[in-house]
Amino acid sequence: MSVSTSSSSSVAKQAIMPEDGVEQIELLSAVEDLHGGVVVDLKEVMDSEVFSSLLRASMSQWKQKGKKGVWIKLPIELSNLVDAAVKEGFRYHHAEPDYLMLVRWIPETIDTLPANASHRVGIGAFVMNSEREILVVQEINGRFKDTGFWKMPTGVVNEGEDICAAAVREVKEETGIETEFVEILAFRQSHKSFFRKSDLFFVCMLKPHSSDIEKQNLEIAAAQWMPVEEYAAQPFIRKNKMFDYVAEICLAKSDKDYAGFSPMLTTTSSGKGSYLYHNNRDMANIQATGDHQ
Amino acid sequence: MSVSTSSSSSVAKQAIMPEDGVEQIELLSAVEDLHGGVVVDLKEVMDSEVFSSLLRASMSQWKQKGKKGVWIKLPIELSNLVDAAVKEGFRYHHAEPDYLMLVRWIPETIDTLPANASHRVGIGAFVMNSEREILVVQEINGRFKDTGFWKMPTGVVNEGEDICAAAVREVKEETGIETEFVEILAFRQSHKSFFRKSDLFFVCMLKPHSSDIEKQNLEIAAAQWMPVEEYAAQPFIRKNKMFDYVAEICLAKSDKDYAGFSPMLTTTSSGKGSYLYHNNRDMANIQATGDHQ
Repeated sequence: MSVSTSSSSSVAKQAIMPEDGVEQIELLSAVEDLHGGVVVDLKEVMDSEVFSSLLRASMSQWKQKGKKGVWIKLPIELSNLVDAAVKEGFRYHHAEPDYLMLVRWIPETIDTLPANASHRVGIGAFVMNSEREILVVQEINGRFKDTGFWKMPTGVVNEGEDICAAAVREVKEETGIETEFVEILAFRQSHKSFFRKSDLFFVCMLKPHSSDIEKQNLEIAAAQWMPVEEYAAQPFIRKNKMFDYVAEICLAKSDKDYAGFSPMLTTTSSGKGSYLYHNNRDMANIQATGDHQ
Repeated sequence: MSVSTSSSSSVAKQAIMPEDGVEQIELLSAVEDLHGGVVVDLKEVMDSEVFSSLLRASMSQWKQKGKKGVWIKLPIELSNLVDAAVKEGFRYHHAEPDYLMLVRWIPETIDTLPANASHRVGIGAFVMNSEREILVVQEINGRFKDTGFWKMPTGVVNEGEDICAAAVREVKEETGIETEFVEILAFRQSHKSFFRKSDLFFVCMLKPHSSDIEKQNLEIAAAQWMPVEEYAAQPFIRKNKMFDYVAEICLAKSDKDYAGFSPMLTTTSSGKGSYLYHNNRDMANIQATGDHQ
């Protein structure tokens, strides 16, 4: 389901000279993908009528060649061409701040185009020091504004960022505290949390390596170390089953026999570094007792 | 960071009658969001020049009123207006097949607009029967095409779908086997797996409730029950550290003391049903021994 292309093709169009040498047709430059489709990575400013006619001629040739999915990546500077692509039967696939990806499925068969990204990923950081105090903040905006509720530092995992790195970064950014990632204690999947999108929220345990708080002023109204019992006794937590249970898991982890998922750095089959999160305590026990094959 | 709006406003523009009653300015209809911004959910077909002038007048009023983020949701039928919005300083936020969301941040301060969805979520299904045979498939397309490699059923979690439901659905769709979700054994986060997007892949254990395979023909070339030792001995698995370790975790789960994360249905603070995945065995032990507060 992944779409990979070579990154050649900086020219926007190419001239095709048929064998009889008489007619010259201009087509959009495209590279083939691994799934029988083509990708047009347009970079040149172009008049929308010129684009329409190039696109029509190109579609006709791709159709003849039995191509399946046709992808057009339009940088935002070429927003004048969006309407022309839609009029040629393209639909939106996804957009990022600087470009829009359009796609059209040529065959009569069912469209097997890959889905768009569907989830945002967030982290909540449970940071407890040796005096059983946890790091908590009050935010300037958002749903807990002016409620007096002290919450764990939370944040969104950036594009291309590992969950374990995001947790360490967010704690550092919001409070200035240096931490070491320990474990994912639990996670929650929720839907329609953001337009139609879903949310995966990972509760992470981190070990502090510093104690002096320097709060960030843009989003954070206050930050402090708070006795964990005081944190868990807050009315919002007591009333909310999910928060209450998460607090209980955090307490279990801090002094009882609870194993979460730890990251193990390994490589994907394509050779990229990639973390596998799993119950490392159980696997270590199994391996230590020789109880595996 | 979530964006919520009331879903009123089907009219595209509104007339404002200033107090002196002389001048009438038309503005785009917008609803306020919870973060000091406004959302325009445009539905009416409109000429792009009319739209430009309405947008300019509206921006000027929103600016006066101290609004922060301005969101414009354009259904694909209104692709003729994309270019006009970009020319007024809007950028793309995200797109789905049927609409494009544009956004502009008005203040001079740093843009605190929420990020777009960044991850696709996939599942792999470890389904083992009482004879220690696991359910495996060969796919018609994709990277393992014609390699002879037998893999676990895998698939993408649909928009709004729970991970545990997706695993059961994919197994049923690909092989006809009825299953019950047991546990998440491990998960992997990988980057740039799809354009710039990342991937979260959850290895799920499921218990089969039927045994007769009826394979789906569009994507699946073959499906069978295979002794788990034979699965784990495949050269691709032995050579690939990640796959090999996952196979070891699956074996640990099937007959040793390995606890993954189980789903617990609960509600978010806004009242929606939502699964929390955690180490339920450890929590049950802690609760059974009275070893919690």
